[in-house]
Amino acid sequence: MEISEKVLGMLTRLGFTKYEILTYWTLLVYGPSTAKEISERSGIPYNRVYDTIASLKTRRFVSEIDGSPRVYVAFSPSIAFLRFKKEVDEIKEQLEEELKRIKVKTEERPGVWRTKELDEAIEMVRESLERVEYEAILLSPGKFFIEIKDSLRNALKKGATLSIYTEGNIDLSELTNIGNLFVRKFHRLNHFIGMFDGREVINIQNIGFEPKNPPSFKATYPEIIFSQYSFLREAFGESELILEDINQKNELRFFADFHAVDVIRRYLGKCDIYAEVIAKSLSTNEIEELRGKVVGYTFALNEGIDNFELETDRGILKIGGMFAVLEDYETTKIKLILT
Amino acid sequence: MEISEKVLGMLTRLGFTKYEILTYWTLLVYGPSTAKEISERSGIPYNRVYDTIASLKTRRFVSEIDGSPRVYVAFSPSIAFLRFKKEVDEIKEQLEEELKRIKVKTEERPGVWRTKELDEAIEMVRESLERVEYEAILLSPGKFFIEIKDSLRNALKKGATLSIYTEGNIDLSELTNIGNLFVRKFHRLNHFIGMFDGREVINIQNIGFEPKNPPSFKATYPEIIFSQYSFLREAFGESELILEDINQKNELRFFADFHAVDVIRRYLGKCDIYAEVIAKSLSTNEIEELRGKVVGYTFALNEGIDNFELETDRGILKIGGMFAVLEDYETTKIKLILT
Repeated sequence: MEISEKVLGMLTRLGFTKYEILTYWTLLVYGPSTAKEISERSGIPYNRVYDTIASLKTRRFVSEIDGSPRVYVAFSPSIAFLRFKKEVDEIKEQLEEELKRIKVKTEERPGVWRTKELDEAIEMVRESLERVEYEAILLSPGKFFIEIKDSLRNALKKGATLSIYTEGNIDLSELTNIGNLFVRKFHRLNHFIGMFDGREVINIQNIGFEPKNPPSFKATYPEIIFSQYSFLREAFGESELILEDINQKNELRFFADFHAVDVIRRYLGKCDIYAEVIAKSLSTNEIEELRGKVVGYTFALNEGIDNFELETDRGILKIGGMFAVLEDYETTKIKLILT
Repeated sequence: MEISEKVLGMLTRLGFTKYEILTYWTLLVYGPSTAKEISERSGIPYNRVYDTIASLKTRRFVSEIDGSPRVYVAFSPSIAFLRFKKEVDEIKEQLEEELKRIKVKTEERPGVWRTKELDEAIEMVRESLERVEYEAILLSPGKFFIEIKDSLRNALKKGATLSIYTEGNIDLSELTNIGNLFVRKFHRLNHFIGMFDGREVINIQNIGFEPKNPPSFKATYPEIIFSQYSFLREAFGESELILEDINQKNELRFFADFHAVDVIRRYLGKCDIYAEVIAKSLSTNEIEELRGKVVGYTFALNEGIDNFELETDRGILKIGGMFAVLEDYETTKIKLILT
């Protein structure tokens, strides 16, 4: 039987043994066959045909028809590989589970992951939304939000704040009445920028033009995050709040200090605001948990200053955001309680 | 580093070597790492890390970040396996191409392919529609036709006749003005029955109830085909033609003789009808190609008789359908020309 090196190579790559490949291929080429015919047509020793078939049956590439002699049939590549892909998905899920269980909790070295496949870039965004705890900032043409709607809803349900920047006139009603959502109108930008808990940033170029192969990346480098953070603060300055949908007043989470300070600025005086933050002391570099009442704030966007004052049992502390310099503490883990 | 037998086993099954698995897993667990770190953390000999990484890079499970020392990053299982599944699809397509090229053209042993997965059963239907040359007869609740719409359109485009039996009130306008389409109203049947060129039959149980795991099969056994053919002839008798959309008058193909005879019965006298058939002589068992003018027919459904008379240069021959007994020839390859 004719079998090309190419077919052999391709299927070997997917983890099939040579006998398995020869058997499957023989059944595809000749149609339903008996073990004897398979052996004659493929050259596999007769006494090896049965265990080969057994393993192909386990993978559901082949099945048998009762009778005497037994006849074996191959499922077409379309059906067989549909199954194979389901198996791949199951393996993927089990890997993810196992990974969650044993992932090392130390500080990770930062990295950058690049792709030009749109579906892969979108998958990166979905993954980050799945992991986000405090806040995702997403700046994008409105259409893209439809595509990742389910992940956005899940993030809201888990209590993460969504801060969306987009052109006006987009219907986000499916995202309201769930969690804490802020939508700001910004001039149309054809790129996608997503920042998640200040830990990672994702960029998809030209997503507004629905490109097939947009250069895209995810990065956890602080310097890349900083560059995008600056851009987002710029966008904040030029934007207009068009939707504020707060459904969890007692736990309003942010990673971006300027978003927290914006809420403080608008609500302080109207209600009492308390805050819980996990923050790094700029004097000792220690990570601390701070709680207290918010008693003041400074917001000078053009000078790049945004912070708030927290009255704690150790006195009033100045809390700044990511890359803070002037304050007592820097934080990307803020919970506000509006009473 | 901890790695379970399970993870090792799963990834081995997909064709990864032990070193590849250890490297990928190390990068997942520890995050971005240098070659030295990979070696230390996984126990892979340092001099084997580079070629392992090279092969993981080819499969796009891992990428590298320029710098000194170089840092390697793993794509998450979601991204990596999205790629892997694309690779599986490519391999599947190449297999199919190669198979088309070398498939043995001899008489195949008949077989039966069973599944309880709805998506696999639907894929079987799509495959059969892709291969159909003369006629597909499809009996099903109307909703299902929406699901396989593209395959139906393609079959029509290629010149195959579609003979659909379904309950009334279904919108098939997307299938009109393309090829030769007949729709007959039949009482609602919750199963799907498809017959393709008289060569194969597909059955999906209870498809009308949108089941998750409907017992389904494809069969090429003549006796199973016969049982379904009889059922379809029954359905024909109880049905009412509600749409006839003939766009290729000069090549109206059928495998089911009773459908051809139905057209002859309705058009003979109104126009001249010629036919080309590939048929088996019941006296010699030889396959012959016959052409001529249609000059008569017999249609006695209750007696199970349907045939037509073809005036050829050898005289008038009686042409019957699949499993014919009384006629001179039996055929499943009929082309009618209406003038």
